[in-house]
Parts: sequence; C-alpha cells; structure tokens
Amino acid sequence: MIELKSHLAGNWTPGYGKPTTLVNPATEAELAKVGGGETDFAAARAYARDIGGPGLRAMTFKQRGEMLKATSRALHQKRDALLDCAIESGGVTRSDAKFDVDGAIGTLAFYGELGEKIGDVKMLDDGEPFQLARSPRLFGAHARVSRLGVAVHVNAFNFPAWGLAEKAACALLAGMPVISKPATSTALLSFRIMELLVGEKILPEGALSFVAGSTGNLLELLDGQDVLAFTGSSSTGATLRGGKSVVAHNVRVNVEADSLNAAVLGPDVDASSDTFNLFVSDVVRDMTQKTGQKCTAIRRVYVPKDRVAIVIDALKERLALVKVGDPAKEETTMGPVATAQQLRDVRAGIDKLATCARVVLGGSAPVSDKGFFVAPTLLVGENPKPSDPVHNHEVFGPCATVMPYENPDDAARLVRAGGGGLVSSVYSDDRDFIQSVVLGIAPSHGRVTIGSAKIAGQAVPPGTVMPSLIHGGPGRAGGGEELGGERGLAFYMHRVALQGDRALLEALLGKR
Amino acid sequence: MIELKSHLAGNWTPGYGKPTTLVNPATEAELAKVGGGETDFAAARAYARDIGGPGLRAMTFKQRGEMLKATSRALHQKRDALLDCAIESGGVTRSDAKFDVDGAIGTLAFYGELGEKIGDVKMLDDGEPFQLARSPRLFGAHARVSRLGVAVHVNAFNFPAWGLAEKAACALLAGMPVISKPATSTALLSFRIMELLVGEKILPEGALSFVAGSTGNLLELLDGQDVLAFTGSSSTGATLRGGKSVVAHNVRVNVEADSLNAAVLGPDVDASSDTFNLFVSDVVRDMTQKTGQKCTAIRRVYVPKDRVAIVIDALKERLALVKVGDPAKEETTMGPVATAQQLRDVRAGIDKLATCARVVLGGSAPVSDKGFFVAPTLLVGENPKPSDPVHNHEVFGPCATVMPYENPDDAARLVRAGGGGLVSSVYSDDRDFIQSVVLGIAPSHGRVTIGSAKIAGQAVPPGTVMPSLIHGGPGRAGGGEELGGERGLAFYMHRVALQGDRALLEALLGKR
Repeated sequence: MIELKSHLAGNWTPGYGKPTTLVNPATEAELAKVGGGETDFAAARAYARDIGGPGLRAMTFKQRGEMLKATSRALHQKRDALLDCAIESGGVTRSDAKFDVDGAIGTLAFYGELGEKIGDVKMLDDGEPFQLARSPRLFGAHARVSRLGVAVHVNAFNFPAWGLAEKAACALLAGMPVISKPATSTALLSFRIMELLVGEKILPEGALSFVAGSTGNLLELLDGQDVLAFTGSSSTGATLRGGKSVVAHNVRVNVEADSLNAAVLGPDVDASSDTFNLFVSDVVRDMTQKTGQKCTAIRRVYVPKDRVAIVIDALKERLALVKVGDPAKEETTMGPVATAQQLRDVRAGIDKLATCARVVLGGSAPVSDKGFFVAPTLLVGENPKPSDPVHNHEVFGPCATVMPYENPDDAARLVRAGGGGLVSSVYSDDRDFIQSVVLGIAPSHGRVTIGSAKIAGQAVPPGTVMPSLIHGGPGRAGGGEELGGERGLAFYMHRVALQGDRALLEALLGKR
Repeated sequence: MIELKSHLAGNWTPGYGKPTTLVNPATEAELAKVGGGETDFAAARAYARDIGGPGLRAMTFKQRGEMLKATSRALHQKRDALLDCAIESGGVTRSDAKFDVDGAIGTLAFYGELGEKIGDVKMLDDGEPFQLARSPRLFGAHARVSRLGVAVHVNAFNFPAWGLAEKAACALLAGMPVISKPATSTALLSFRIMELLVGEKILPEGALSFVAGSTGNLLELLDGQDVLAFTGSSSTGATLRGGKSVVAHNVRVNVEADSLNAAVLGPDVDASSDTFNLFVSDVVRDMTQKTGQKCTAIRRVYVPKDRVAIVIDALKERLALVKVGDPAKEETTMGPVATAQQLRDVRAGIDKLATCARVVLGGSAPVSDKGFFVAPTLLVGENPKPSDPVHNHEVFGPCATVMPYENPDDAARLVRAGGGGLVSSVYSDDRDFIQSVVLGIAPSHGRVTIGSAKIAGQAVPPGTVMPSLIHGGPGRAGGGEELGGERGLAFYMHRVALQGDRALLEALLGKR
C-alpha cells in the first residue's frame, strides 16, 4: 500500500497525526495510508519562510510566471496518470476528474501568463503616484510588496488537484512560499502532484511544502506576516479564524465555506426556449457534477409559482438519465460521494431538508451495499420560510430543492436567506427582472451569473470557477475572496503607502 | 454638568453602562457624565440597517459626496467652539485641537469631493468588463456594491473628532449606515459633533448613530453584512476580532492598533543639512504633538552608531523648549495625557523601557500634583535586542528611544522588530540607502515616508495621516487599512463578480 508523505523543510517525511487508511469510494478497496510520523512544524515553517521566501522574492513576476507555466506543463504531461488517480481515489467520473485536474492545469497556466504580463518587476503598482500636498515635489504612491511569511493552505476533499493549484498559483506568483495541506480522504491525488513537482525541480527550494495528515501545531505558530487560506466547512472555518494565534497576531485569513447557491428562473422564460433549456442543463449539471460535492453546486432552485410543476418534470426527466455507479465503468455518469462520513452527512441532510420540503426524486435511502453511493435527489418546497433548513443547511451531495417565488423582490429575499453565498444564477431575457434580482442578491454573493438566450450555446455554468473571476462569498460562505486575476494576489501581498520627493519615489517604484 | 447621550434609533437616550464622570485632564475639573441608561442595541442596529441603509443606498456617490461636504461645512462653522471643547475636554493645546478638528473637517471634505468625482452612480466598477471564454458575447466583470448591514466604529480617545469623521466619511460615502462609539474619556467633543450633525439634519434618518458609554451587546449582534472598525490597543483589538459573533458570522473587521513607529537617519546626513533638520523637527513634533498620544508618533529613532551623541544633543535642545502645562494657557506647547490611567501607563512604560535603555531627558517622575502631566522623555538604547521592550511595548506618551544601527540591513531588521507598524520614516539623500531600508521595511508597514533635502521645506511629517494615503499596518498594528482615497471604501462595500451576455452586463453596470 502506498504511504503518503509530507514534504517539509526540503525532505519527504512520514505524515503527521493519527494513522489513516484511504479507500476507493466506489469499492472501499484500501489504497494508501498516512500518518503516525513525528513532525517539527516550527522547523518546516522556518524553512519555507527563510529559504522559500527569499528564493521566490528574488524572482520577478515574469520569472515566477514562467515557473507556474512550467508546473502547468509538468501536470499536463502526466495528465492521464493524474486522471486515473483521481477516478480511483476520489470516486469521480473521468469527466469530473478532468474538471479537477484540467482546472489545476488551466489555473496554473492562467497565473503563469498573468505573471508574464506583469513583467520583470518585483512589486506591483497600486494606482499612479500623485501630488500629496501643495508642493509639486511631494508625492504619494501605493505599492504592493510580497509578504515575508508563509502561506498555509488547508484544502477541501472535493478538489485535490485544483484546490492545491489555484491557491498555490496565487501565492507563488505573489512571491509567498506555500505550505499546502490537502484533506486526507482524497490526498492521494495531491500527493501525486507534489511528487511530480518535487521531481521536476521547477520551484525554488522551500517554495512549496506539503503536509500529509494533520497540521499539528502549525497554525499556532503563525504570525502577522503569514496568511492562512482555508476551504471547507463554515464551522471549521470559524474555528481556524478564531484560533488563538490567528487572533493574537492578526494573521490574515481567507475562508471559503458553506454556500447554498441558488438558481432563479425568470417569469418570462418559456419552457420551449433556449434560456429554459440552459437553466435545466445548468441545474442538472451543477447538482450531479462531482456527485454534488462542489462548493458552487446549485442547492436551491427558485421558479415562478406557476412553473413549479413544469420545472420539476423537466429536471426529473434529465436526472433520470444519470447513471450512478463505479466511475471506473465507462457508462457511469455519477460516482459515489467521497467518504463514508460524507454519505452519512448527505443522507442525514436530505432527511433534514425533507422536514420542510417533499422528496420528488431519489431520497436518503441506501443505493448499494458497497461504496458511498447516493441517488440524485430532488425536493420541492411549497412555502419555504427563511429560517427553514433549505436556506441554511448545505447538503454536500447531488441534491437540490425547487421552490416558488412571488415577484423579483421575493426571489432576491429568498436567495439572500442563504446568508451569503459563492454564486447564484438568474435565467431570464427580461432586463428589468434581471436587474432587480441581480442587484438584490449581489451584496450577498461572490459571483452572480446571468443565463440568457444570447449565450445559451456558450455559457459557462455557474458552478465552474474561472481564474479570471473572484471566488468566495460573504457571511456563511466564509467572507473570503480568491482568484479574480490580479485580485487574487492581493491576499498574499502587503499594500504600503509611500510618501516623499517625487523623483525618489519614482526611482524606488522603478519608474525612472 | 453636561450629560452625554446616545443617539440611537433616531432618538437621544441616556448613555449605556457604568456611570462615569469626564474631567478636564489639565485641572481634573468635572465636565460631563455618561452612563446608567438602558439601551436596546438590537433595535438600534435594526433601525440603522433598515432605515439608514436604504436611505443611503438610494443616493448616488455624488449625492453622498455632497452630503459629506455639507457635514464638513457644518463642522467648520462651529470650529471655534469645537476647538475650545477639544482643549478643555482633551487636555490638548490649540494646535493639537486643530490637528484633530481640522483633520475631521478636511477628511469629510476630501471624501465629499471623491464622491462628487465618482459621480451619479450607485456601484463602483472594479476593472473593465472582459471576454470570459471563447465566445465574444460571454463577458465577465467585477463591481463593488454597498454592504447591506451596519458599520460599527469603535474609536480611540486621542482623536475624538477625526476618529469619528475619518471612519464615518468612508462608510457613509460607501453607502453604509454607521454606529459610532467614541472612547468615553474624551467623548464630549464627539458628542458635540453628533449634536451638531443631528441638529443640521444633513444626513438621512438612521445614517449615523452614536453610542455614549459602552456598546453593551451590540457587537454580539453583528452578522455577515455588518462590519466592525476598531482603533485602540492590540489586546482589545484581538478580543473584538476573536468575538464569538464576529468569528461565527465572518463579520469583516478592521483593527488599527499599537505601533512602534520608527525614524531612521541615513549615514549620509550631515548634522548641518536640511535633511538633518527635517529629521530632528519630525522626531520632536511626533514625540510631543498631542503629548505623544498619536498612534503614528515616533517611538524609536535609529541612527548610525557614530551619530548617537549628536542626535541626542539636537533632540534634547529642541525638547527643552517644550512648555508643559494647562493648554488653556497660551504659552503651553504640550498638555497632559488624557486620563489618570494613561498617566499611570505612560509612567510604567517609561520604567519598562528603562530596563533596556537609559533616560537622558525627562523620565517617569511626577510633574505636578494636579492634572495628568508627564515630561517629554528621551532614552538611549546602546545595544537593543529585538526582544527588548523598546521594540514591543508602545508607551503612549511623549517618549522616544534613540538607538544605533550598523548598516541598512541592520536598520531594517531593527525597525521590523516592532512586529508591524503604521508608519516609519527614512531620512537620507542617498538613493541606495533609501532603497535598501524602504524595501526592507515596506512589508511590515502601512506607510513609509522618505525625508530628503528636496522636500525639507514642504514635507508632511510621518505622524500626519492624509486621507489620500492608506492608514493601518500589519501584525501588531492590527492588520487593517483605512482611508487611501477610494481604497477606504472597499471595506464597506462588497465585491461581486458578474458573468453573462455582454450587452446585459453592460446595461447592468450602467455602461449602455
């Protein structure tokens, strides 16, 4: 059996924490083990900060961009092996595996190109220098410089490739060394990627460290130059954000957590239209892709009162085509959830939703004896109150609830009842309706997508996170922000104001 | 005796919390009382959110800018009365009072003008819309929209006017209603300003609320659309940041806290030069202005080893001219500290510094029987270790320590030993030296100022916070960021990504 190791302070070492066995979620066959080792996290952090940090900061954005492109190419060269590993260790279909692995490859390439575009500089301008007071000689300016600490990344089980890559791409381009910790259950794929990157020697020594198993006392060691980015549950996010050292030293924290993403169908959308078809396709895809284990999956579907029945019929028809099974088999279109615990949580969650909505397809009943399978599940809620579980309990599986709304304000109010989300979508070709709903939900979402007839053929579904757009959301969704092109670098950099003689400032900023 | 009241839910009500008496810090004469009332903070928050929020969001940036300019004019019309109040209730000289009150007037006017410049829009562009994928119809964009909650502002005692105004200016311009709580000891001036603004009816109903006394359970009521901005000690900042509700609901928090701001003299600077003179003036001003009760005051002075004696002599000569006394008397150039507790803290702090440095002027001994007076105090540290109190204990009074450094890297290392600061300054005309020190300390400071011969006559001292430059700092300084022109609005707004058909997006963003 494979043993997952950490790569810390330049060496492979046994993973830390309670020994754990990783299994294939479809067959429950044992795949790998991790844990049981001793780890000096203080030494690991110091190595990343004192060796990795200076190594990265000695490079320009262009050089770091080239480095990221090389990591992207290295992953691309081993794509088939990585996809196979994803399918076996994550219980995902080949298509889902591509979503994760190609997402990683694409995001690394995107930030590689961004670095090249930024060019041969080591700090970023933040606006133009300007005259500060009455004297034309006295100027002010803002710049962003790399933070001097380490970036600790704690990732979720659902994207072992993309999660590692999207966070690392931003941090490394910004000049911060990374200590990345994948969720243990699906960490085999992250480990394979780390093995690959260590083997290829693309990154400077100490720039990327890897924690197999648990992080021990690492988070207690962080200080004001370090940052912590976490993807996972709201409750764990709150624990990390409220951690003693994090609070005492003002460690910068980014949390991406639970989200009850919604899709809203406009009253103008006819059931025979392209917009309706796009709506149904998006809902089904975002319910079932990765077996619904996607922080951006659609959980709530709001439709005009008189369309509930037709929407339910359309969704049931498409969901009936979903083939649940071992993703190693070609005909399978939806695999199991990732772990036995996830399966228990999803089943309990469906039962919880069923207290305020009615199951019309699937349900919480077991699907098989072996493997962590659950059926695509659709519910309908006739009269949802904002305090009902459907608005505040995220079921992390292939499950969504259809609910009626009265008017645009009502739709926005119900969507906002989710308490802050990553992404919600509006399907309509009526500008007034779109405007009302989009403006109504924008303050409580990281992203809002508009599905309309003109882009029906080329739309990117709401559940797909693009590196050029920010990813995160307020409130329940964690209050964080990742990606968004250059915006994603800001978390890893420190903004500083500079004031002084114009010529001196411009020389300092590399402008003359 | 005057009774300070809260203005909450549209009404004046008795202040909350333990009854407290405010005194003149120079004479200890009783001036005002506060506290003892009952307050329904949930109703106060709901009123601000549900009445103040929609009222502000119905206005454009231009309209909110005009509103801020009107508040600035209203304060300016009562400037003399406000200055008198500041002198009596804050123990500050007329010059110090102007620094606070004119700072408030200027910052409100600055954000008023910014609003007018932004124009008749209700959301802010964040970059240009761009093509998202292969289709030229599918676009992405980012915008900032007003958050839907309340902005709670908890201010420090040292700037009862500016503190209220600079935070409120950003929040109100961004479209968020404010609940402002001044530090009780000097709250009389804040209360006078609030009385003035309520009387003038410039702001929409519910846009600005005022807490006299303590905040009761207000902070426990905050959720993911609310924000909390705090200025004060690192320890209180940590308590607020780690608050149960703040952590659980991902309340956005900005802390501006302790800072051991440093001034570094370059080895090239001759004692007869304009740069040397600027350095000495800045150090003396930032030590003694507001009796050193300024979060941006210079606490540490690093000079080349062979200049320690000459710098000490020059500073002692200037500090000997400082006249300590009741600021009601015209000849006084430095008043008392604000409270009996501050006096105890400053005296204890000087004694603490004296464990690693030697007092060469002033000291912790009492200056008078009545009033909270302390002498301007200069220390010299021969061989300061990074762990010594001089690098980690902020004495919030007219006190600084001169220390030697070996070379630019050593100077930067010693400055960074402060653990993150608001502002530090470098005095030199040698570009290489400036570059080394500025780049070395930039990641651990919110602002770095460069003092040089060319601007010696027109320089803005490092201790002066300009609304166009960001104010805040990492680590010990709280990890926050205020002001900086439009940058200061970001904290009060939510950034959202939008994706969809180009024409629809552009219509939504008001671009067609």
